[in-house]
Amino acid sequence: MKNLLSDEIYSAVGADALVVTQEDLRFYLTGFQSSFGVVVVDGSGTKFYTDSRYLEAAKKSVKQGITTEEYPKGTKLAELLRAYGSVGLAVGKANAAEYIAIREAGHEVVDSTSAFAQAMAVKSSGELQSIKAACVAADEAFIALLPQIKEGMTENEAAALLEYEMRRHGASGTSFATICAFGAHSSVPHHETGSSPLKFGDIVLIDFGCKVGGYCSDCTRTLLFGDDGRHDDFKKAYARVLEAHMLVKEKFTCGMTGREGDAIARGYLEEHGLGRYFTHSLGHGIGINIHELPNLSPGSEQVFENGMVFSDEPGVYFEGQFGIRIEDTVTLRDGKVVSLTDSDKSLVIL
Amino acid sequence: MKNLLSDEIYSAVGADALVVTQEDLRFYLTGFQSSFGVVVVDGSGTKFYTDSRYLEAAKKSVKQGITTEEYPKGTKLAELLRAYGSVGLAVGKANAAEYIAIREAGHEVVDSTSAFAQAMAVKSSGELQSIKAACVAADEAFIALLPQIKEGMTENEAAALLEYEMRRHGASGTSFATICAFGAHSSVPHHETGSSPLKFGDIVLIDFGCKVGGYCSDCTRTLLFGDDGRHDDFKKAYARVLEAHMLVKEKFTCGMTGREGDAIARGYLEEHGLGRYFTHSLGHGIGINIHELPNLSPGSEQVFENGMVFSDEPGVYFEGQFGIRIEDTVTLRDGKVVSLTDSDKSLVIL
Repeated sequence: MKNLLSDEIYSAVGADALVVTQEDLRFYLTGFQSSFGVVVVDGSGTKFYTDSRYLEAAKKSVKQGITTEEYPKGTKLAELLRAYGSVGLAVGKANAAEYIAIREAGHEVVDSTSAFAQAMAVKSSGELQSIKAACVAADEAFIALLPQIKEGMTENEAAALLEYEMRRHGASGTSFATICAFGAHSSVPHHETGSSPLKFGDIVLIDFGCKVGGYCSDCTRTLLFGDDGRHDDFKKAYARVLEAHMLVKEKFTCGMTGREGDAIARGYLEEHGLGRYFTHSLGHGIGINIHELPNLSPGSEQVFENGMVFSDEPGVYFEGQFGIRIEDTVTLRDGKVVSLTDSDKSLVIL
Repeated sequence: MKNLLSDEIYSAVGADALVVTQEDLRFYLTGFQSSFGVVVVDGSGTKFYTDSRYLEAAKKSVKQGITTEEYPKGTKLAELLRAYGSVGLAVGKANAAEYIAIREAGHEVVDSTSAFAQAMAVKSSGELQSIKAACVAADEAFIALLPQIKEGMTENEAAALLEYEMRRHGASGTSFATICAFGAHSSVPHHETGSSPLKFGDIVLIDFGCKVGGYCSDCTRTLLFGDDGRHDDFKKAYARVLEAHMLVKEKFTCGMTGREGDAIARGYLEEHGLGRYFTHSLGHGIGINIHELPNLSPGSEQVFENGMVFSDEPGVYFEGQFGIRIEDTVTLRDGKVVSLTDSDKSLVIL
């Protein structure tokens, strides 16, 4: 029995053999996580080489149709490829030294980066299950965090608590460094979580996600820690950002491009005078990696399909004052946007 | 004023310019962490290009002597390098696509991998401070964890608690996925932390580390959760592994090679009939990356110097029964080994 996924990419690339050493692509093909390994696909099938630390576990859990063998000790990668003329390599992800070694051994290199990226953009039902599980862990952790948020707590403490709750709810770890921004820090889209203490009346922006079964979730919530009565502009802007977020969920469908998706949120915010404060793209693909295809951005001509998973995350940032971002991980199912993270997005005032 | 570190590596590599895009090397040269940026070093100085998200923060905090500029939008890397003939690139770390673009623009590529690796192996006093802080956070977290370890708790829960405590004690995150192994799982050197519950009489092996200021710590402790009286072999082996660990601290000095260091522990364990259960190297360098130079292994001819930071981690593994590993992050100071992680290593029975 053959492994259809690696066969498919092998056919799309059209080289004599595919070689995969990068951790994310290796996991994608084999379903097995390890810090070392090489996958070689040719016309006769798919072989996964790994070292003695992983061998027994790999034999039990690699995808059906893949043969697992111990990597021959002391063997250079080029020797594994001796039988082939052209070799498919994801040059956009591969290491330069590997590329040089393959070229110096006389192989023609065919770039497989795009074949992988396009295949990985559309998720299988198993992949969707893992992403959903990562989204549920993030949702549950966020709900568990809310009653623990107290005055005087630092950004780092809140992030640490949330990460602990994600772990407790089944995550193996975070999918990126949690962003926790209090007060005016929320106006920096990539604020570095620090030691500022939480004060009454602060805006709290938390951008977080975790991994389950090797797959990521990504979610952002913006809330108010006590209403000190000076937040009218914030509340108006919050309602606009939430409406932009919801419009994407309503109107975006299969067959539209990333540019058209981005334009749904951007057009609405522009109509309401907020366009120039929306300083980033609407969204990015999510899977084994926290940033992958497809992109929802003004320059994206990617046509969206069922099974793609991506973020819907409009945001506005008023420098030195406040920022708002509302993000869910979503997918397209039967032509419609379905939310995978789904904790309440109406404005929370703690 | 010039940035001495980048000038030094520039001179060692001997190309017209050095170009650095990899996150760890970029952070090493600039002292500034970012997900995007390019460093270009030539005879006239060091320039750091980054995007608008990081520009203001970078200008304030890059190392003295480095000029920070916004990366010219839409510009390809090769265009930044137009003025140069040969270009230094860390091909062991660089991306193949970058390498191809630089070659196709007509540059000769000089490999800077080894110059970086050798420079990074010897830490500055500032780097040692960060690593020490990461070690203190790990030590304090472990001590805080001990009274929280309870029967029935899963490996994942214990790991999550420890990671939370490291965060609480000042870490920005883990330096690798925490390994927590209960019972016979301890006999797998790279056990994947799972959902097994802790039972009375279980061995507990925890391999953990965190990051402070961009630098890593690494520590392993093996303990007993209740003494059910069936652990004589374990206790004997524990004493041997601890003795091997301590012998390295006593006898290893500047001017010795990694092979000689490894042989101190390996020789002792062999003398006591445990050599064949010590299935990995004695240690690895620790810094911005959790695994870097110098290595303490049977094949390492690297000569050790003051300021190097590495792990001292002998271990023995009895398949299906139990494993023991005792690891500290250490450095060489005035010719002697100094422990940077330093929580108690006498056998703890909870």
